[in-house]
Amino acid sequence: MGKIYVVGMGPGREEGMTLEAMQAISGSDVLIGYTVYIDLLKERYPEKEMITTGMKQETERCRMCLLQARSGKTVSLVCSGDAGVYGMASLMLEVAEKEEDRETEIEIVAGVTAALSGGALLGAPLGHDFCVVSLSDLLTPWELIVRRLRAAADGDYVIVIYNPCSRSRADYLKKACDILLEKLPSGRPCGLAKRIGREGEESGVCTLAELPEKDADMFTTVFIGNSGSRIINGRLVTPRGYR
Amino acid sequence: MGKIYVVGMGPGREEGMTLEAMQAISGSDVLIGYTVYIDLLKERYPEKEMITTGMKQETERCRMCLLQARSGKTVSLVCSGDAGVYGMASLMLEVAEKEEDRETEIEIVAGVTAALSGGALLGAPLGHDFCVVSLSDLLTPWELIVRRLRAAADGDYVIVIYNPCSRSRADYLKKACDILLEKLPSGRPCGLAKRIGREGEESGVCTLAELPEKDADMFTTVFIGNSGSRIINGRLVTPRGYR
Repeated sequence: MGKIYVVGMGPGREEGMTLEAMQAISGSDVLIGYTVYIDLLKERYPEKEMITTGMKQETERCRMCLLQARSGKTVSLVCSGDAGVYGMASLMLEVAEKEEDRETEIEIVAGVTAALSGGALLGAPLGHDFCVVSLSDLLTPWELIVRRLRAAADGDYVIVIYNPCSRSRADYLKKACDILLEKLPSGRPCGLAKRIGREGEESGVCTLAELPEKDADMFTTVFIGNSGSRIINGRLVTPRGYR
Repeated sequence: MGKIYVVGMGPGREEGMTLEAMQAISGSDVLIGYTVYIDLLKERYPEKEMITTGMKQETERCRMCLLQARSGKTVSLVCSGDAGVYGMASLMLEVAEKEEDRETEIEIVAGVTAALSGGALLGAPLGHDFCVVSLSDLLTPWELIVRRLRAAADGDYVIVIYNPCSRSRADYLKKACDILLEKLPSGRPCGLAKRIGREGEESGVCTLAELPEKDADMFTTVFIGNSGSRIINGRLVTPRGYR
């Protein structure tokens, strides 16, 4: 009987992976994932069987994992960041349910998600309660995204935005900022982290009013501070409490 | 000139640490931290200078880091989980500001926080937008915690609760559940992860109505699903979207 690991690879560099993730990958017979992540692993593990599928082939990828595991192989399904945060873990468990497979062992291996790796790059924006919201409306109605942004502002949460823009959603970050500006001051400290852990990594701070003009893309993670957040020496810092 | 790393050690086991965190620690002359975390490192690095301080000595710990770094040493200030999420990173940057120290290099090294490691243990609760809220009112007024819980429920977020209880706050999780039950159905799927990555690690799922009766302590992380979350084969799963 094989086994499936759903592995969060962290931000990009090998240094950002946990030892546990490395062990799962090196102990697997087959690595399955989106082309970009598999390419990162090809150099390191030239001997391993690799199966790549393109974007939007996620369900197919999970089915392949089950097929391989049932044939007795140990499989790693690799994701960037964490395995669970908008990752493949939930889909993998749903596909196993749909195929009425209660036998194949599926282990989730956590990884450093962009809220944490981007936060470290910017300073310490997550020193207090925070929300993570994706602006992608591929699987989520835009009305729900708006409701979540408003709730996050009402709760004085630090807000971390994933998937702020893409080619087909060029103005989504601007739309999100407009919604937040109904409730939050224009001077609220914000930050952006781009291509975290990869070539061309960069980060910077700005105000909420300046945020829509920043060059965010699908490899950018956006941080909006809470009422206590400050810029200290060029870094975005949210104190741990209100003293 | 020395340097300070603020290092997130992950959930507990060495396997949960990133390679980057291990490199920072092994490259440091001095390790500084809360007694419990330093004890974990003592066996592995018997040759290193270690400075421990007790609970609530956090500011003092940061001052010691600056002192050591200014004397030319490389210092790792170690935290469990992530360095930034309710961690020491923000306090370290604030203490450096207070001492008007703009020279000492401070690098934040991210780690796997309990929302991620506990999520992996439970299944895939963080497949969609989520909030992280601490119930500790040591540094946060209880009214703000209540406001955040209500906002999280209004936004249909998955909610991750840190510090659900302690000896002096034995009924806080119950109080939080009462607030959430004003807005959420009693059957809402929930999960608990205890002593993640340590001896006695355990996890389990229940409903929101059952949650207050569960034996949560200060080493427990609590998960409350969103409207789409389900229990699949004993695991808490939040689908990535609404199809």
